[in-house]
Amino acid sequence: MSDLPKRVTINEEGPREGFQSEKKMIPVAEKVRLIEALAETGLKHIACVSYVNPKRVPTMADAEEVAAAIRQKPGIEYAALYLNQQGLERALRGPLHVTGSVRITASDTFSRKNIGKSVPDSLIEQRMSLKTFKERGMPVEWGIVLGAFGCNYEGELSTELILQRVQSVLDEAELAGFKLKGVKLTDAMGWATPASVYRLIDAIRNKWPELEVGLHLHDTRGTGLPSAFAGLQLGVTDFDASIAGLGGCPFAATDGAVGNICTEDFAFMCEEMGISTGLDVEKLIEVAKIAEEVVGRPLPGHVMRGGTLTAAKARGAAARAAA
Amino acid sequence: MSDLPKRVTINEEGPREGFQSEKKMIPVAEKVRLIEALAETGLKHIACVSYVNPKRVPTMADAEEVAAAIRQKPGIEYAALYLNQQGLERALRGPLHVTGSVRITASDTFSRKNIGKSVPDSLIEQRMSLKTFKERGMPVEWGIVLGAFGCNYEGELSTELILQRVQSVLDEAELAGFKLKGVKLTDAMGWATPASVYRLIDAIRNKWPELEVGLHLHDTRGTGLPSAFAGLQLGVTDFDASIAGLGGCPFAATDGAVGNICTEDFAFMCEEMGISTGLDVEKLIEVAKIAEEVVGRPLPGHVMRGGTLTAAKARGAAARAAA
Repeated sequence: MSDLPKRVTINEEGPREGFQSEKKMIPVAEKVRLIEALAETGLKHIACVSYVNPKRVPTMADAEEVAAAIRQKPGIEYAALYLNQQGLERALRGPLHVTGSVRITASDTFSRKNIGKSVPDSLIEQRMSLKTFKERGMPVEWGIVLGAFGCNYEGELSTELILQRVQSVLDEAELAGFKLKGVKLTDAMGWATPASVYRLIDAIRNKWPELEVGLHLHDTRGTGLPSAFAGLQLGVTDFDASIAGLGGCPFAATDGAVGNICTEDFAFMCEEMGISTGLDVEKLIEVAKIAEEVVGRPLPGHVMRGGTLTAAKARGAAARAAA
Repeated sequence: MSDLPKRVTINEEGPREGFQSEKKMIPVAEKVRLIEALAETGLKHIACVSYVNPKRVPTMADAEEVAAAIRQKPGIEYAALYLNQQGLERALRGPLHVTGSVRITASDTFSRKNIGKSVPDSLIEQRMSLKTFKERGMPVEWGIVLGAFGCNYEGELSTELILQRVQSVLDEAELAGFKLKGVKLTDAMGWATPASVYRLIDAIRNKWPELEVGLHLHDTRGTGLPSAFAGLQLGVTDFDASIAGLGGCPFAATDGAVGNICTEDFAFMCEEMGISTGLDVEKLIEVAKIAEEVVGRPLPGHVMRGGTLTAAKARGAAARAAA
C-alpha cells in the first residue's frame, strides 16, 4: 500500500449540505442544535449555511437567523457559503467565517443549472469577489473545481478539460494577486471512482507538483469512501464530509442525489488505519443520531448503527491480560 | 494505482445471507422469486439457502422447500450452505449445488457462538465432510477463514493467528487428499479496512505466493467497498456480495450487523473502472428493488437510488456528436 498520510483534516459540510437538500423546513433552533453539537466533536471547520437565493433554495431563507443564533466556540470556523457577489456581501455582513476562494464548474451546463451562469461569466463575476478579498486582506488559498468527475448533463468530462479548469482558477487567482496553495475537486453528482481519483490527481500532480489537492466527494453510488481511500493513498489530506451522510445538491439532476461521504464513517476508517483525524468518533456517532432527529428520517451512515470497535477491542485486551 | 484486474467474479450471497438475518418469515414463493430474478443478471453463483438448525435460524426452516421450488437455469450454481456434517448431508440430498470446502473460524469464541463448536472440534468434524467429498469425487478448492479481520468477542486478532488458521485449512485439506487453490477471508463482523486487507493479504502472499485470496466483506461500518477496492488493487478477483446489501450474520453480536458489500454497487464501481464483472448492472438494480419488496424494507444499496451513469454518458456523447 502506498504510504497513507499520518493525519487528515475533515471539514464538516453536513449542516449546509443537509439543510439545503431537505424538502421540509427545519426550525432554526434545530439547525443550531446540530451545529453546536458538531462543535463538540473536534471538528475545526463546520459549513453552517449558504447565502443563496431563497427563491431557489427556500430552506436557506433563514441563513442570517441561523448564523446569528450559533454560540461560537473559539478555534472553530463556522463557515458560510456564497455563490456570487451578492451572497458574498451577505456573508461578510454576518458573524460567520467567510473563506476566500475562486470557483469554477467543470461542465458549462452544470454551471448554468447550479449557479445560473456560464463558466466564463462566473469567472468574470468572481473578479469582484477576489477584489473584495484583496481589499479586506482575506487570504485566497483554494481553487475549487465543481463537478470535476463527470456531469449528469454533459456526461464524461476529459482530463484535459479539468486541467484547463485548474489552469483557469490559478490564472484568476494570480490576476487578483493570490497564489493558490491547492485545488479542491468536488463531485456533487457522484461520478468519482477510485480510478478517476487516481487519473485526475495524477494529471494535476504531473502538471503542478506543488499544488495540494482536496476532495469533496458525494456517496451517490457507493463509491464515495473507496474514492476517498484512493485519495488517501495519493496523499490527499483535506476532505469534506457530512455528518451521517446528510445532504445532496438540489440541482444535480439525480433523484438519489445524496450527501457527502459520511463524516463519522470516514473518520472511523481513517482512525482504524492509524490516520489521525482529531475527531472523537463516539461523539460524532451521537451527533449523527441528532442529525437524524433534526431531519426526521434515517440517514445513510453506517458506523452509527454498527458501532465502533473500541469496546470489542477493550474486551479482547482485558481477556488477554487476564489469561 | 496498482494494476487492477481485468475481470472479477462476484458470487451472490443475498438470498442466503438475507433470509437468515430477516426477522420475519418470508414466503417460499417470494424467496424463489428473488433467486430466479438474480439468475437473469449474469450471476453464475447464487447462494440460495443454508441447511442449518431451524431452531437456531428459524427463517431457514424452509430450506428444502425453497431449494425444490427454484427453476434452475443451466450454467448457474444455485448453492446451498452447510455448517456441519448433518447440514452437508441434507444439502447433498437436495437439488442445489454443494461446494466442497474446509472452514475454520479465526476466533475460538466466535466459532462457539456461530457454529456451536471450538475451532479444533470443528476441524475434527470436517474430516467427515472431507471424506464425503472425496468419496463422491467432489472438488475442494477453497479454504475459508471466518471472521479473519477481527472479532466482536475477542477483539483484535493477530496476523500470526490468521496465518496459523490458513495453515490449518491447508493441512486439513492435504490430509484429506486435496490441494487448495485459494483461501477466502470472511468478515461477518465488519472489521476489515483497506489497511487490514493489505496487511493480511500481503502476509498470506508472502508465505504462500501461489494461493489465491477471495474476500467476503460486510459493510457494517462503511468500510466494505473501500476494503474491496484494496482487494482489487492486490489482484483479488473473487468476491462475495449481496444484492441491495441484504443480510448479516445473526450471531455477530452487533445490532447493526449488516450484509455483504452490495452486489450492484460493487459491480457498478468495477465496471466504471474498466473491470469486467459479466453482470448487467441495470438488471441488478431492478432485482435490488425486488429484494426490497421481498423483505419489505429499504435496503442500503446506493446505485439503486442514484442510478447508473449510462444515460448521462449517452446524452453527453450524443450532444458532442451533434456539435
